[in-house]
Amino acid sequence: MNEVEVLFEPEGIRVRVPAGTLLSKAAVLAGIAIDMPCGGKGGCGKCRVQIIGHAPDASAEDLKSFGAKDIEQGMRLACQTPVHMPMTVVVPHNSRLTETSQILGSAGGIHDVSEAQDPPIWKRYVRLNAPTLEDDRADIERLLDAIGPCEVRLEMARLLPGKLRKQGFRGTAVLSERYLLDFEEDNTEPECYGVAFDLGTTTLVGVLLDLATGREIASASRMNPQTQYGDDVLSRIQRARDESGGLEELHGIMRDALNAMIAELSEKASIRTERIYEATFAGNTTMQHFLACIPPNALGEIPFAPAFRRSLLFPASKIGMEIHPRGCVVVFPVIGGFVGGDTVAGILVTGIAEAAKPTLFVDIGTNGELVVKHGDILLSASTAAGPAFEGANIKHGMRAMSGAIEQIVLDGDVHYKVIGGAKPVGLCGSALIDITAELLRKGILSYHGLLLSGDELPADLPPRLLDRVIMGEDGPEFVVALESESGTGAPVTVTHRDFRSLQLGTGAIRTGIAILLKQAGLTPAELDRVYVAGAFGNYIRPHNAQRMGLLPFNVELPRVSFVGNTSLAGARRVATSRTARQRAEELAFLAKHVELSRDPNFQMEYMEAMFFPMEEPV
Amino acid sequence: MNEVEVLFEPEGIRVRVPAGTLLSKAAVLAGIAIDMPCGGKGGCGKCRVQIIGHAPDASAEDLKSFGAKDIEQGMRLACQTPVHMPMTVVVPHNSRLTETSQILGSAGGIHDVSEAQDPPIWKRYVRLNAPTLEDDRADIERLLDAIGPCEVRLEMARLLPGKLRKQGFRGTAVLSERYLLDFEEDNTEPECYGVAFDLGTTTLVGVLLDLATGREIASASRMNPQTQYGDDVLSRIQRARDESGGLEELHGIMRDALNAMIAELSEKASIRTERIYEATFAGNTTMQHFLACIPPNALGEIPFAPAFRRSLLFPASKIGMEIHPRGCVVVFPVIGGFVGGDTVAGILVTGIAEAAKPTLFVDIGTNGELVVKHGDILLSASTAAGPAFEGANIKHGMRAMSGAIEQIVLDGDVHYKVIGGAKPVGLCGSALIDITAELLRKGILSYHGLLLSGDELPADLPPRLLDRVIMGEDGPEFVVALESESGTGAPVTVTHRDFRSLQLGTGAIRTGIAILLKQAGLTPAELDRVYVAGAFGNYIRPHNAQRMGLLPFNVELPRVSFVGNTSLAGARRVATSRTARQRAEELAFLAKHVELSRDPNFQMEYMEAMFFPMEEPV
Repeated sequence: MNEVEVLFEPEGIRVRVPAGTLLSKAAVLAGIAIDMPCGGKGGCGKCRVQIIGHAPDASAEDLKSFGAKDIEQGMRLACQTPVHMPMTVVVPHNSRLTETSQILGSAGGIHDVSEAQDPPIWKRYVRLNAPTLEDDRADIERLLDAIGPCEVRLEMARLLPGKLRKQGFRGTAVLSERYLLDFEEDNTEPECYGVAFDLGTTTLVGVLLDLATGREIASASRMNPQTQYGDDVLSRIQRARDESGGLEELHGIMRDALNAMIAELSEKASIRTERIYEATFAGNTTMQHFLACIPPNALGEIPFAPAFRRSLLFPASKIGMEIHPRGCVVVFPVIGGFVGGDTVAGILVTGIAEAAKPTLFVDIGTNGELVVKHGDILLSASTAAGPAFEGANIKHGMRAMSGAIEQIVLDGDVHYKVIGGAKPVGLCGSALIDITAELLRKGILSYHGLLLSGDELPADLPPRLLDRVIMGEDGPEFVVALESESGTGAPVTVTHRDFRSLQLGTGAIRTGIAILLKQAGLTPAELDRVYVAGAFGNYIRPHNAQRMGLLPFNVELPRVSFVGNTSLAGARRVATSRTARQRAEELAFLAKHVELSRDPNFQMEYMEAMFFPMEEPV
Repeated sequence: MNEVEVLFEPEGIRVRVPAGTLLSKAAVLAGIAIDMPCGGKGGCGKCRVQIIGHAPDASAEDLKSFGAKDIEQGMRLACQTPVHMPMTVVVPHNSRLTETSQILGSAGGIHDVSEAQDPPIWKRYVRLNAPTLEDDRADIERLLDAIGPCEVRLEMARLLPGKLRKQGFRGTAVLSERYLLDFEEDNTEPECYGVAFDLGTTTLVGVLLDLATGREIASASRMNPQTQYGDDVLSRIQRARDESGGLEELHGIMRDALNAMIAELSEKASIRTERIYEATFAGNTTMQHFLACIPPNALGEIPFAPAFRRSLLFPASKIGMEIHPRGCVVVFPVIGGFVGGDTVAGILVTGIAEAAKPTLFVDIGTNGELVVKHGDILLSASTAAGPAFEGANIKHGMRAMSGAIEQIVLDGDVHYKVIGGAKPVGLCGSALIDITAELLRKGILSYHGLLLSGDELPADLPPRLLDRVIMGEDGPEFVVALESESGTGAPVTVTHRDFRSLQLGTGAIRTGIAILLKQAGLTPAELDRVYVAGAFGNYIRPHNAQRMGLLPFNVELPRVSFVGNTSLAGARRVATSRTARQRAEELAFLAKHVELSRDPNFQMEYMEAMFFPMEEPV
């Protein structure tokens, strides 16, 4: 068989593959994980690589994904490019699958590769004339004559005279819409970075962005350290309100975690944190208050009034954010006390506000946020889903990262898929949905949410499944991964308590969807599109989500899109586009906030939703 | 003779005066010093008093000075109101002559009582509805819906939720053009204050202003403590540049002096410093750099480029200015390295930029600033006059305050007038001008600037004058106030060194005027108006200023106006009017900066000006 050699850069790894092998396959053999959320169909445009030297002809998908200049420079989609002759391929960082790109994951439905059109921070290298008696303009005036009008704040005014003279009146002006951030030595135009964060109640996710191109350079995620003071926002609000120094403490531990993530992102990308000029945050209303260290007390009491609705823009130094010393922080606008910037971000990236046909947006996090668009109506609401779908408060739950089981199928036995191909160590959100739906189908889990055992189990249960129903310390458990398969040395199980958490979370979201659709005058069948956001991992199966009641029945499955972490995607977009920031501001005022518990149907809907659906969706 | 009684309030002092006596005269008898810079001609509108009960008919001057409502409420000019029946008269603080109002002094020529039309800070008392489930607007949104759009910065966003709830959703919003400063408990609308300062190289002068009315409530002045590091700006610039921590030290001691003055102003007016929301500063370019703690290094070297030209606006906390914690600082725009905000202020208050006919503005301070308007030409320049006219570096020099001799006439003997009617302790600028001119006339001082003695003195010198020429430690001196008259127990003299200082200062200004007029294509005779500003005291006699060469010959004396401290007057105007602030910004760019020393005539003019004029002006 005719073999050809492929050299992957920058690693310098060589592999030999049969002629005609796709580059994406060759990369797998080289141990290089290329991101292909569409599964290698050429549809998502994520698996961009650059072929150095002679490149094969561009495919139709290549021509859709790239401009002429890119094509000419050898840019191709790895999943569409067969290898027929030896080649050198550069895999950009942005095309790689990282641990957290699964949490960030956008499995189609939205366009994720945002090209910055109008970044809020930009740079300009200038050479000025030194002052002379003929030209004795003031230092600031001299610089602004070259770069255009902008505010120069006191801190910068103090630094500028020294910088100009030290740098021989040459350097790179760092500009924002509002003011001059710096005048850096030499030409630093290519180094203009921002960070964007999703501030979740349970999870913090952040990305490092090249502001000039909008491209993601690195990503990071970690547990929100505030969880040590409670899984839900209310217990944290109470602590901030009732404990002396409580607000500062809750603010401080989150700030420290974010700073650690910024340091991690900078290290991953080998950049200096002083080259990060902007940090953009989308999160629920309470998290945004904690970030800015604004007392969230009123969010803990009826009528849950937030302190602010419009976006906040302030110097990063005011909250000790360790980016450029004169960098700025952008905090998303909010819709209401429990419908925050994360929802605004979701509306922004899904384009639901512009949808011509009835559309539903569901963001499943510790708080579930819901948005319905119907004609002129744009309604939003939130519901306390708990952290189960993020893998928290679940015995073997974990975030969607390497080692997490992300897919489960039951037939005569258990089949699962692990992120990163590693040994399983836990279950992420998508696996929890799968296992709930599958155990309901198999009759191992009752629609009341009870994990059955012994005589309660169906008589015809395959023996391999039967063996997996065991008695744990605290009641029955179902073994997903056996001790022998597990990466931890102990079986990976789901417990009856886990199902209780999932049931409560599912019920809350289901109630919210039902009420919001009613208020908009819609039935599920009338929905043209359903966008489901959340940090599940990339491979949720919609029919399983329907089976457990998370999504309404009567919605055709092709109309459902899983759009990943839209809070982060929105933060990214706002971080790189002034237009997007303006639009987010408008959207926060367009969306009407519905207080679900005030709906007369709330009690009844909620009671009904406390059980899983009895049957498969029709 | 028919006598009537006048009761002066708030002192409660009663005096009996002959019927027909002017109120201004009655006030003198009561020991109440009313400010009458126009000398009681009804022209300046400063001597406003309020007559309680039945008031005499308003005079023509009253009708010019007051609106119908004021007239109806008994407002009258004290200098125009004869007393024919018993009356009670309230003398407002603003109409009184205070020590420092002599330094501030505006001796006609400009309209000094600025009524605030569009203050940059204002207040609004509001009552809001508390949030309900039907009305769950965000706190900031709720307030802005009531007071109109404005920026709410992070510090305020952190305080607002607590304040709203503590105050039962009622309070007084403190607003600036740019952002919300506070939300105060109760209705504090009447308490809205600002301070305005003239930052002189030698002297700091400040006033407390009611921002709603523009009225001055109190004033204070003191030596600029930076003088301990040198009388001139250059030695201070060098210190800031060469000593470690030098800039911070020079900034700090001035800041501390200003804070002490703010405390003094607040105490005088019995107000809290937290009710002062704005501090406005006009001064020379270097002082303004020191105030903002911006390195002035480049101002110490050719081509003397300043760091900033536009006005600065920043939070007062950034320079530790002890006013409201979220108050703001306004620093005047500058024209060039040595033509600063004080000159912009002078252009603003004299209206010279709008003058239709040729006009000259001379501001005599440690730096003399000059402006010429001719047609479309607006030229400005500065010249190092030294602090002599402010009484510094003069053996018995002092500022124009109680105890300062302010007028001197020589005939067969010496006659002088002392501010406050006290015993003399020194000489202020106007007295120095008088004594120089008079000694030149008497032949006691030669046009070379030498104080003659012994045989050099004219043979026909009156014996009483002859006796006053004495030999001091350091050369000849002239005794203005004898030991027996003096408040210090020692004679008040002028020395030959003093005349050297005055000669150098005069020469610098004279040179500047000559060159600037030439560049504008003007002769002195063509000048329609000459405005002379400076902290001399109120009673400069123009012919004496001409005699010593400070003002050009060939200017008709009625065309000369002494306009007092225009730097302070401009700061006051900008402190109370957004329009004035905008206009100051424009003026700084309209005025062209002339570097005097680059004029080909400079050397010759300077040599000539090194001597006093040989003769009286014609």
